[in-house]
Amino acid sequence: MTAVGIDAIEIWTGNLKLDLPGTFAPEKGEDPEKYTKGLGLNASSFPDSYEDIVTMGANAAHRLMERKGLEPDDIGRIDVATESAFDNSKPVSTYVAGCLEQVYGEDFHHANKGERKFACIAGTQSLDDAYNWIRAGRNRGRGALVIATDTALYARGDAGEATQGAGAVAMYITEDPDLVELSTEQGYGSADETDFLKPNQQFPSVDGKRSVQVYLARMREALADFESVAGDTHPDQFAYIPFHTPFPGMVRKAGLLAYRHMIRDTNIEDELAEEIGRQPRSEAFEDDEAFRDALREYMDKLKDTETYQEWYEATIDPTLTLSREVGNWYTGSVHVARVSALKHGLENDLDLAGSKLLVGSYGSGAQAEGHAETIQDGWKDEIKALNVDEQLENRYDLSWADYEQVHDVHNHEMDVDVEEFTTPESEFVFDGWGRMGERKYRYVE
Amino acid sequence: MTAVGIDAIEIWTGNLKLDLPGTFAPEKGEDPEKYTKGLGLNASSFPDSYEDIVTMGANAAHRLMERKGLEPDDIGRIDVATESAFDNSKPVSTYVAGCLEQVYGEDFHHANKGERKFACIAGTQSLDDAYNWIRAGRNRGRGALVIATDTALYARGDAGEATQGAGAVAMYITEDPDLVELSTEQGYGSADETDFLKPNQQFPSVDGKRSVQVYLARMREALADFESVAGDTHPDQFAYIPFHTPFPGMVRKAGLLAYRHMIRDTNIEDELAEEIGRQPRSEAFEDDEAFRDALREYMDKLKDTETYQEWYEATIDPTLTLSREVGNWYTGSVHVARVSALKHGLENDLDLAGSKLLVGSYGSGAQAEGHAETIQDGWKDEIKALNVDEQLENRYDLSWADYEQVHDVHNHEMDVDVEEFTTPESEFVFDGWGRMGERKYRYVE
Repeated sequence: MTAVGIDAIEIWTGNLKLDLPGTFAPEKGEDPEKYTKGLGLNASSFPDSYEDIVTMGANAAHRLMERKGLEPDDIGRIDVATESAFDNSKPVSTYVAGCLEQVYGEDFHHANKGERKFACIAGTQSLDDAYNWIRAGRNRGRGALVIATDTALYARGDAGEATQGAGAVAMYITEDPDLVELSTEQGYGSADETDFLKPNQQFPSVDGKRSVQVYLARMREALADFESVAGDTHPDQFAYIPFHTPFPGMVRKAGLLAYRHMIRDTNIEDELAEEIGRQPRSEAFEDDEAFRDALREYMDKLKDTETYQEWYEATIDPTLTLSREVGNWYTGSVHVARVSALKHGLENDLDLAGSKLLVGSYGSGAQAEGHAETIQDGWKDEIKALNVDEQLENRYDLSWADYEQVHDVHNHEMDVDVEEFTTPESEFVFDGWGRMGERKYRYVE
Repeated sequence: MTAVGIDAIEIWTGNLKLDLPGTFAPEKGEDPEKYTKGLGLNASSFPDSYEDIVTMGANAAHRLMERKGLEPDDIGRIDVATESAFDNSKPVSTYVAGCLEQVYGEDFHHANKGERKFACIAGTQSLDDAYNWIRAGRNRGRGALVIATDTALYARGDAGEATQGAGAVAMYITEDPDLVELSTEQGYGSADETDFLKPNQQFPSVDGKRSVQVYLARMREALADFESVAGDTHPDQFAYIPFHTPFPGMVRKAGLLAYRHMIRDTNIEDELAEEIGRQPRSEAFEDDEAFRDALREYMDKLKDTETYQEWYEATIDPTLTLSREVGNWYTGSVHVARVSALKHGLENDLDLAGSKLLVGSYGSGAQAEGHAETIQDGWKDEIKALNVDEQLENRYDLSWADYEQVHDVHNHEMDVDVEEFTTPESEFVFDGWGRMGERKYRYVE
């Protein structure tokens, strides 16, 4: 069976940055470590006044097309995943295609354009749609452009305000991909949950505590479902495990939970038994609460073992490096985590070709998905070609007053004009409103 | 290659009806024929105060599952297509699954749930996603539930007010389907258009004239693209051609255009030449305008030929019967047209097994898609099992005052309570708001 997966990936960050320990914490009168240690975040990316989900998505896609030498005819499908859409009918992908048509001689008239919404998991769902389309033999030799783009803003003063972010990830999905092959096997954990909602509103209503519980519960279900088709997982199987990262602290919890699940009935559980005992089994307890308490106690001990910490440092921590600097990009977040991991491999000169990733996506509402990926021979060149460090370095560092202004600019209920903080160059920018209330765009040389 | 397609389909109409010639026209001081002849519409379906996109979608899905004896474990995917979503993050499919879980002992925790948005074409896109998922070998023997559900309302007084509608179509997609097999071949015509938008608003802004042009232009591109992979089409190839039907008058134009395209360089063009001449070819004209004028003249003559009229009566007109009584259901519309056609086949005792459909979907913004379907042996039983006539017959006939009230109930910007006009029975109903602003539902025995 021909490999199908991600041939290339590009990241486009919002051009502004909010420093959490340096700017946000002092303004809130909080200890900076609440953000850097607690949440695990140093900064959030923000869109400048001329940026939005279309410009970031189109810029990521344009950079990807240029780098890979792609023409519109190479692209049979453009799917945008977002939970920041500004139109209830016309999909963002048509705007993105309109942007790209401004700089390419050809058009995308024979490409299927779509839009998916399911909180943060829609980017992975779109990736799967692209994979399935190719496997179904409908792609006519073309690839799919999948774009995950969001402006993850919260209402001012909301508890989630520190976990904001804005950016886009563009991926090109093909046969014989250069970066990673996707597994046919997938696992799902999905339930009708009320953890995070946007009922006819731009900014989310969040039940923070419930959201953490639901993330972990759905992720556990997805892992079990994945194992039911792909066989048992083992911590040594995977070079990295990129999870959806609303903030790195969430992934610390998920990593520990996944590890406990994976080592059960393995040599690792046996080896650790002398130090921390064996995992509690529910059948040994009279009631659920006692079992849960024992489990919690075991997890606390497990977290402190050298075995776990070494695994975490090698397998999970590298997935969080970029997230710490950009915050939550919603649909793009798990794909940023994958890039972060592979960047770690490159910087540490690891030989990753043929190694596996286990990718854990999540969207509130709620659904988790797990699948495996096999790193391809071309991965180093693909990751080397990224300029994400340069992009992050070049962001304008917002003062608190700047931040207050730019948040208002992106609030759909406010009509605020603010001079841009950065000067766009070789990128698509928002260019005002058309006669029917549509957003217009142009390319700035 | 195993056939993949639609195994079963169900329609759920909103429980109310607005009579266009009888109620709407007199109130507007218009000739009733403006609606019945011009638009081709007799009535619109409307949702009662306890109905919305979730109840209609869940009711259609529930009826389908009951009729086919399906359990939650038979369903590996629930995709909802809508442009009437009421949450910017949580997908409608999770609400639908939550409803269905109230009446089934099992849950849908391992089903991938999604939501697609692209004006009226997202239903077909979701159908394709399901097809591709099965072809990709990822379905583990399960089928996909695809639900197209919309409340297609316009602002009061808008030119589109006469083309409203509300209803849901549920489809079960499987291997070896009982109803129709889908072709691998598809054609797309897609461009960044501003014909119909909902920029941060519930009701659409429409450029009616442009919308008609764009529908036809994109449909022509899609047909040409389909022919580039499936070979030339011919009018005799297809038993029916269901088009997206915003109103039947639109399809009259599309049917004529498709016919002209299909008969070009065929025996039919030759046979008609004596009566109306051959089709104008652009190379014979000095300028585009003269060519277009000649084309328009040819089309006017073609429309009046007996050959065309017989074809239209047999192939296109039967697809419009239901639409005339329900209006535009947005994402569900083209799927209602397919049912309408097959119902005609059943009522006229036609032997359709093995016959083909050409299905033309469209969404503003804009994209058309064309694919072929092969009618399966089980089609008659599937269509016989529908109770759509009974549903339409049972709708409550709104007075003008009722209509004004119920339109307000469904306006997201108004907070209006109106007593229900009908009594729900064996169906899901809206049951008020939860603590986070989520909509809640319950099943009424």
